[in-house]
Amino acid sequence: MNDLLEKAKLVRKWCMVSTTEAGSGHPTSSMSAADVMTVLFDKYFTYDLKNPQNLANDRLIFSKGHASPLYYTMYALAGAFPIDELKTLRKINSRLEGHPTPEFPYTEAATGSLGQGLSVGAGLALAMQREKTLTQKPFVYVLLGDGEMAEGQVWEAANFAAYHKISNLIAIVDVNRLGQSQETMFGHHTEEYANRLTAFGWEVMVIDGHDMAQVTDAFEKATKNTSGKPFAIVAKTEKGHGISFLANADSWHGKPLPKDMLEKALQELGPLEDKQVFTLRVPQTIATADKRAEAMITIPYKVGDSVATREVYGSMLAQLGKENESIVALDAEVKNSTYSIDFMKVFPDRFVECFIAEQNMVSVAAGFARFGKTPFVSTFAAFLTRGADQVRMAWLSQAGIKFVGSHAGVSIGEDGASQMGLEEVSLFGTLPDVVVLQPSEAVSAAKLLQEITKIRGMAYVQTLRPKTKVLYETTEEFPIGGSKVLRQKDTDAVAVVATGITVEEALKAADILEKEGITITVVDAYSISPIDKKTLLEVAQKVKTNTIITVEDHFIHGGMGDFAIAAVSENGVKVVKMAVIGHSHSGTKDELLDRAGISASHIVEKVKSLVK
Amino acid sequence: MNDLLEKAKLVRKWCMVSTTEAGSGHPTSSMSAADVMTVLFDKYFTYDLKNPQNLANDRLIFSKGHASPLYYTMYALAGAFPIDELKTLRKINSRLEGHPTPEFPYTEAATGSLGQGLSVGAGLALAMQREKTLTQKPFVYVLLGDGEMAEGQVWEAANFAAYHKISNLIAIVDVNRLGQSQETMFGHHTEEYANRLTAFGWEVMVIDGHDMAQVTDAFEKATKNTSGKPFAIVAKTEKGHGISFLANADSWHGKPLPKDMLEKALQELGPLEDKQVFTLRVPQTIATADKRAEAMITIPYKVGDSVATREVYGSMLAQLGKENESIVALDAEVKNSTYSIDFMKVFPDRFVECFIAEQNMVSVAAGFARFGKTPFVSTFAAFLTRGADQVRMAWLSQAGIKFVGSHAGVSIGEDGASQMGLEEVSLFGTLPDVVVLQPSEAVSAAKLLQEITKIRGMAYVQTLRPKTKVLYETTEEFPIGGSKVLRQKDTDAVAVVATGITVEEALKAADILEKEGITITVVDAYSISPIDKKTLLEVAQKVKTNTIITVEDHFIHGGMGDFAIAAVSENGVKVVKMAVIGHSHSGTKDELLDRAGISASHIVEKVKSLVK
Repeated sequence: MNDLLEKAKLVRKWCMVSTTEAGSGHPTSSMSAADVMTVLFDKYFTYDLKNPQNLANDRLIFSKGHASPLYYTMYALAGAFPIDELKTLRKINSRLEGHPTPEFPYTEAATGSLGQGLSVGAGLALAMQREKTLTQKPFVYVLLGDGEMAEGQVWEAANFAAYHKISNLIAIVDVNRLGQSQETMFGHHTEEYANRLTAFGWEVMVIDGHDMAQVTDAFEKATKNTSGKPFAIVAKTEKGHGISFLANADSWHGKPLPKDMLEKALQELGPLEDKQVFTLRVPQTIATADKRAEAMITIPYKVGDSVATREVYGSMLAQLGKENESIVALDAEVKNSTYSIDFMKVFPDRFVECFIAEQNMVSVAAGFARFGKTPFVSTFAAFLTRGADQVRMAWLSQAGIKFVGSHAGVSIGEDGASQMGLEEVSLFGTLPDVVVLQPSEAVSAAKLLQEITKIRGMAYVQTLRPKTKVLYETTEEFPIGGSKVLRQKDTDAVAVVATGITVEEALKAADILEKEGITITVVDAYSISPIDKKTLLEVAQKVKTNTIITVEDHFIHGGMGDFAIAAVSENGVKVVKMAVIGHSHSGTKDELLDRAGISASHIVEKVKSLVK
Repeated sequence: MNDLLEKAKLVRKWCMVSTTEAGSGHPTSSMSAADVMTVLFDKYFTYDLKNPQNLANDRLIFSKGHASPLYYTMYALAGAFPIDELKTLRKINSRLEGHPTPEFPYTEAATGSLGQGLSVGAGLALAMQREKTLTQKPFVYVLLGDGEMAEGQVWEAANFAAYHKISNLIAIVDVNRLGQSQETMFGHHTEEYANRLTAFGWEVMVIDGHDMAQVTDAFEKATKNTSGKPFAIVAKTEKGHGISFLANADSWHGKPLPKDMLEKALQELGPLEDKQVFTLRVPQTIATADKRAEAMITIPYKVGDSVATREVYGSMLAQLGKENESIVALDAEVKNSTYSIDFMKVFPDRFVECFIAEQNMVSVAAGFARFGKTPFVSTFAAFLTRGADQVRMAWLSQAGIKFVGSHAGVSIGEDGASQMGLEEVSLFGTLPDVVVLQPSEAVSAAKLLQEITKIRGMAYVQTLRPKTKVLYETTEEFPIGGSKVLRQKDTDAVAVVATGITVEEALKAADILEKEGITITVVDAYSISPIDKKTLLEVAQKVKTNTIITVEDHFIHGGMGDFAIAAVSENGVKVVKMAVIGHSHSGTKDELLDRAGISASHIVEKVKSLVK
């Protein structure tokens, strides 16, 4: 144990040195978990530092991302990189950022927004469980702070892991008592965490997190756990433990030591040699056996058929999954509405029921993505807002999740405003480089679902609740960033650019107007981000008024209209936005499109007002 | 008990009749809770139907909002409106929407996105506890579905209510076993819910939710509970209970009965007279004693001082709170960073520590708003995304919450991308009529905080981590929807419209350019939504290039730039957006502004490229 204590001292030293060097950061929140991490790296953590992609690696997630000084120190002292690099912490050219990001190659998930790591870990661990090439399942270790146990997502993950019997998931709760601005909800009452985790179906062990024998015993039991339950180590610790004037002391959150105090602290630690002190066990190299051929799909829809694009999602994903075995589908207990159930029926082992817990679902998907899978995440579009922060962090984690939000817009009808997806184009579109698509009918929906399996990054596809008429032949192509000009004549007064459900309205409007002698261009802007700037400019220049009307079943700010304006405004094209501008209501689809001012008759009026 | 059974039959009848009439809706999810609600309305629920604003009213929230047929039926059978109005359910002109909204006057909170009601109820109940005019505390009843117990927010609320000893909060969990697409996580294992709630510090009672004696006993105990803990009634029920072919049957989620089956069902119920069967006890009328004078503030900042706008928030809120006693402040355990701690120090009884649980915080604030309070909610801007769905629902609930997000943008520096608020203008701006403000310095921040206390609706103010120079005299006015022209000459080539931290960069750029003989207009667009269209048009028309450059520390889509473009594009003004276009990093403020392409030097370059 003396050996461990010495190693832990070296760990603590670098938690302090790196943050003092940086002039900011969280040394004391790092030091509380230093002993636990020392034992983990000394004996249990099995990892091929040369190959982070090795499926047989254990995984480690610092859900308390602000303990990054500890995180980086562990890898440095395991020989992953020169110890001196720790002095670059938080600098602009360093990969050792204030909170872990994928720039550091061992980062499983960007953390720093609290309470997300356990979900990512559960996703990784479940992916391992299902990976047939792994005869022995590696462990996923997640370090959580006590403060973040207040985040509901932690309890979503706790339920999820117990329900799915993810017994290779090991949570370590670092109960150091002190939050940022005051004591946490439960202080040092470790039984509060233990009781909750036990009630949620976990195997739980409470220890003194600074007693090396207890810590070792805990990892021993956790890695030999045969209960079938996930395992939690609840460690009572002290913030700043190991240094007399920091240990369990108030007002040290997020503060590095001034240089003179650092010197005092290092004197307390005594002489230490800066050298690699951990040698990780390297597992056998194992790669996935997934077949990942580019998927061929058969599209059964004919022009004029009535099909809901949400139905297309289910049947196409089931087809795509045959050639591309990396595809997995996750749903939040609405699979019979999003139609992900059709994928589940064919591939039950590649479907993950996440129940009504969207935050956990998004982060679990990030875990699957990190394991090399291609996760498709579906629920009502409106309920994807529940996971907005998780989407943001998954994006920072470079997780190529494909989101499919059904029940877009007021067109869903009678269920009313709470169920309407009116913000998701804005939500996903705000994140740079996320592909946002809104097909209006079945063939484009099918083709676009195929397209997004070809890209590495994140994508969002909105699907519709009501059926719409099939507009396209199955031979048509739908590249990301494209659009379709559906009507165009030399006499056109204005170009109406629609997306999703409003394409049908725009076509109706064109018919009505034509009877009155006014012709308009109609564009199906199925790709919102990126938007088809070239086509928008072309159609705008051809119409007599040099004007585009955008019309969409989305709130007026942040939607397709804003993408269109941003694309063409530098060229002096006038853009008039039609979109939803207030609370919607219960009613029929047609009543609600009309009430929102985006129905065919409103388009007709708007065109006439511009032509006058 | 026979009398209760007969009343419950009438309740069930109308759950079925109203949904069959509507052609959609959730009769069976309503019927599982019909007996519990019958007992509540028959004896316990104390409410002045003529005065929903009476502070002494009990409150009832259907967190499982899809059980709205039951919800409306209860009020109809209590005489709140003619029973026949139930036949208007889900129709465009009806206030009886698919999920409860404030159009129905007894709705405490719009529900329909699951798992939010307990938080709203906790907010209402805590507001009651703190209301001195209420000598006896009313009860807040929240009906939850078993499916929504998977939402983490429920557990955030559970922790919150136990921690704050909100003993007048009574949760009823309707364990009807069946979710939308399959059995819930725990089926009929009521002990799973009971164990969890007990571990979370609640008083819990498990009952047969269809045994009127047990239900009565539960409400008796809940309303006489002296434990100081919140109380949960876990009721084992059957979906569709009361009708042989619906009870506990699969595949009936969200489906109304066809007319012939409705007739069969009504025959099973036997003859029933449609009449008011509940007479609610009416409490004494009690109004708030809050003094709500328009707040005067003293602003201590002088032009040239360096002050962080986040500090302004704390000290100004403490001032505003003196004259306006309706103001309460909520924070997610970062009060020493957002500076809401300064309000807490003066008004500890009007501060609510929500710990690291942003979703619950937002919905608790909605509860306080419904009780007539003016809640200010603060955390890091980035972490407000955690509550995006709760913000959306609070907006649907017409809750006039004022959000203050600190640590906006890359300017926060070393903590890195996970802590940077780069999406919140988009998040809040997408919601129609939400006021979005981004002051650049202390005086405007102080004045704008005062302005938002004058409006009824929702508002969002971003504050900055770093100090900025005070630009304005304290006599200056800052109306919502306004802006300030900081530099303007006849020779100006282009107008640079900045907001927040970039105002300082724009001014620096102007100085640099002037030395090179180029003058520019500089506008401080402190009001993003609504944006100052008039001024933007004016400055654009005056500059030689008819061009506006927008520059902001926010992602390029959905931010101030898009508001600006939308405002002026119809008038042929060219707009060039400068904003953050990818992942940020750790680094110093200046390094990161430069890396993001929004520093003074980048503005200089952009102006030069346009002037050429």
